[in-house]
Amino acid sequence: MSSEATPAVSIATSAKAAFEASQLIEASERVRALYEIRRELEARKDEILAANKADMDAAQAEVAAGRMSGSLFKRLDLNKGDKWDSMLQGIVDVAELPDPTGKVSYTSELDEKLELYRVSCPIGVLLVIFEARPEVVVNIAALAIKSGNAAILKGGKESAQTAQSISKTIQAALSRTQIPDSYVQTIQTRAEVSSLLALDKYIDLVIPRGSGELVRNIQNNTRIPVMGHADGLCSIYLDESADREKAVRVVVDSKIDYPAACNSVETLIIHESLLNTIWLDVARALLSANVLLLCDGPSLSSLTSTAALGPNLQTHVRAAPPDAYETEHLSLTLSVLTVPSLAAAIRHINAHSSHHTDSLVAESEGAASIFVRGVDSAGAFVNASTRFADGFRYGFGTEVGISTGRIHARGPVGLEGLVTYKYVLRGQGEAGHIVGEFGTGEGKKKFKHQPIQASAVPF
Amino acid sequence: MSSEATPAVSIATSAKAAFEASQLIEASERVRALYEIRRELEARKDEILAANKADMDAAQAEVAAGRMSGSLFKRLDLNKGDKWDSMLQGIVDVAELPDPTGKVSYTSELDEKLELYRVSCPIGVLLVIFEARPEVVVNIAALAIKSGNAAILKGGKESAQTAQSISKTIQAALSRTQIPDSYVQTIQTRAEVSSLLALDKYIDLVIPRGSGELVRNIQNNTRIPVMGHADGLCSIYLDESADREKAVRVVVDSKIDYPAACNSVETLIIHESLLNTIWLDVARALLSANVLLLCDGPSLSSLTSTAALGPNLQTHVRAAPPDAYETEHLSLTLSVLTVPSLAAAIRHINAHSSHHTDSLVAESEGAASIFVRGVDSAGAFVNASTRFADGFRYGFGTEVGISTGRIHARGPVGLEGLVTYKYVLRGQGEAGHIVGEFGTGEGKKKFKHQPIQASAVPF
Repeated sequence: MSSEATPAVSIATSAKAAFEASQLIEASERVRALYEIRRELEARKDEILAANKADMDAAQAEVAAGRMSGSLFKRLDLNKGDKWDSMLQGIVDVAELPDPTGKVSYTSELDEKLELYRVSCPIGVLLVIFEARPEVVVNIAALAIKSGNAAILKGGKESAQTAQSISKTIQAALSRTQIPDSYVQTIQTRAEVSSLLALDKYIDLVIPRGSGELVRNIQNNTRIPVMGHADGLCSIYLDESADREKAVRVVVDSKIDYPAACNSVETLIIHESLLNTIWLDVARALLSANVLLLCDGPSLSSLTSTAALGPNLQTHVRAAPPDAYETEHLSLTLSVLTVPSLAAAIRHINAHSSHHTDSLVAESEGAASIFVRGVDSAGAFVNASTRFADGFRYGFGTEVGISTGRIHARGPVGLEGLVTYKYVLRGQGEAGHIVGEFGTGEGKKKFKHQPIQASAVPF
Repeated sequence: MSSEATPAVSIATSAKAAFEASQLIEASERVRALYEIRRELEARKDEILAANKADMDAAQAEVAAGRMSGSLFKRLDLNKGDKWDSMLQGIVDVAELPDPTGKVSYTSELDEKLELYRVSCPIGVLLVIFEARPEVVVNIAALAIKSGNAAILKGGKESAQTAQSISKTIQAALSRTQIPDSYVQTIQTRAEVSSLLALDKYIDLVIPRGSGELVRNIQNNTRIPVMGHADGLCSIYLDESADREKAVRVVVDSKIDYPAACNSVETLIIHESLLNTIWLDVARALLSANVLLLCDGPSLSSLTSTAALGPNLQTHVRAAPPDAYETEHLSLTLSVLTVPSLAAAIRHINAHSSHHTDSLVAESEGAASIFVRGVDSAGAFVNASTRFADGFRYGFGTEVGISTGRIHARGPVGLEGLVTYKYVLRGQGEAGHIVGEFGTGEGKKKFKHQPIQASAVPF
């Protein structure tokens, strides 16, 4: 070990050691730690905001030099509006959520006095990589502590001083609890991330929160499981049974409510029977909301042959370029495609969407049934905006992220995405339990396999 | 696409297409398909056994030339004992298991007439790689079909003709159902596997069943999630509160019941207070079962200073070599380590075991509680043989494999390891549902987040 004790190895092994030690600490102590963190953040508010000011000043120079966008700059500011107070309130919200660990999800009495329990437990060490917004440090630390996982956090370099100040605050708070200081660590450089991505012996899950490029780059460079989404290419299909008003409302909301979000719609698919009816109303509403439409042949010609679509018809309607249906616009731009059938729409969605969230507008229950079964995405919606795909809106109380993977957690992920389970087998009675006594021969025992009434492991 | 339509791409895309088409087929049709496969296997029994004979003849030459082991050769034989009948019965057993798909695990009424359902569904396309035993083709095909996943299967080259004959049989049976023929495909070469491992767009999960080397090699060469275990290095700790008879029974059964299995014990950890008491009884029992003991200093000297341990004391007790505690012996060999405390035992297990299954022998409930919480393994057992770690023994009815990963499925994996879930959001009522109406401002709606009584999606 000593020969390979690089900084990354030392960070990873101390995180794992902290995780293992924490397994013997009661869940109530983790909740107490969250309140300690909140208290310490309040106490050090001036110091943290000073660090944030320093990050902002450095960033201001980057913006002036044209090396940083204004929107990124705005996200750095920890003192903007109610951001500071929301950050503190977020800790309380997470603290008050139900404990995701210790829940029994399967039981079986294998034999007299031999009881099997499947019980939820933390995953281990999380490596969370995010960009810019420094309050994410607090958010992720709270989620990790609540769920019993150790965490290594890497924020954007733009917010390095803020993150470091917050990180020190968290460690100071943890030092007043039974939870080891190295339970939550912050790292600063991409080189450290690269080294950590190789340490699958110590790190159990990587959660990248940021651009598709960031996520893909991480997926390509580690054996550690990655939870997240590289893309959010969501679609809406207007079925031939679609209601006009629902189509307009759902499409417009899905596009304009927050165009930069991963759950905004990027492709509108229209049944050909709607080209000269509902499509015109939908297009009119989108154009008056300043949405740029990238249309296939049929949807384009029905617009250009129609008067009264408003002044934006000339400027905001274009023929779709070849890559239109593979593009996550993240802006007021929408690709439009015409199809001859529901089946064709489903095929297009399965081939081109990012399996995030796709919505159907239809009055036909039959079409709805086919759509939600046939669309192979984390979310299959009917007559509802794609923007509902969100942990808070789903009622999880918090959101760890949104996963487009199918393994472990899919779609918006709440605290339960941060736990796994273990099997506890409890042998009691006079003799140790052995498999050699079970079997099909004479005198052999049979397994009972009876459920046990228990909501927790009895020790 | 045409430029990259290699055989692997064509296999993968047709598997994905078959999966997507199958989503609209009722689960009852999948069960019917299983019975059709059973019928077709019976009808073609002679043909399949002839192919198996050809594989055996070729293998016989390899054995004679010293290029194949006798145990591998034996596993090829599909006509040995009741293997053929068990294979057919296995199809019926899987067919009769509860359907793992379509189960609702979370509901929330987000708003009046806006209902969220989380419903289990197949993962997609499975790539299953295994060695030698040709009946695994039938077993895996049954699991995949029952759970609604398409599968690409690669067996060992030793059983290639048998596997191909079975595969043709399965496709002939599927052709009498609504399920596409390309739902279950068999490939023959390692080159095809390598190509498929790159196709994460079409393949959703890789399940390697075979040697640790096979599993590690696959994990290192794909971005696709891998479910399985490379190693099964299980331990037993004899606590200072251990009962003598339980210690003997549990350790002996864990070691000798089936030494080549991944859930056999490889390391015995002893509290130092037992060195001259229980350890001697355990050692005596192990030695009379012809187990080779690789001992650390203290456990070795207590044996060598003790008479009456039987004739094997001279031949079957050795000083542990440096790699003893990292070695999965898979034979009648056991590494033995002495520790001063339960905490030291847990630390050793977390650092050296493969997080598969570890067992404690103890009368103290306090020690049991600390052990099952502190040991970071898929199975944490008390007074029971490590050999209980098995899907059938756990009561799952079948076993897809055993996972030492923490993500998605951990420990023995039943059919539910082959499903994921999707969120279905059902908007009803007069208007389409939009997020713009929800929020904190005046006149904004609040989410209801009330559970819905439903065991299935209502359409």
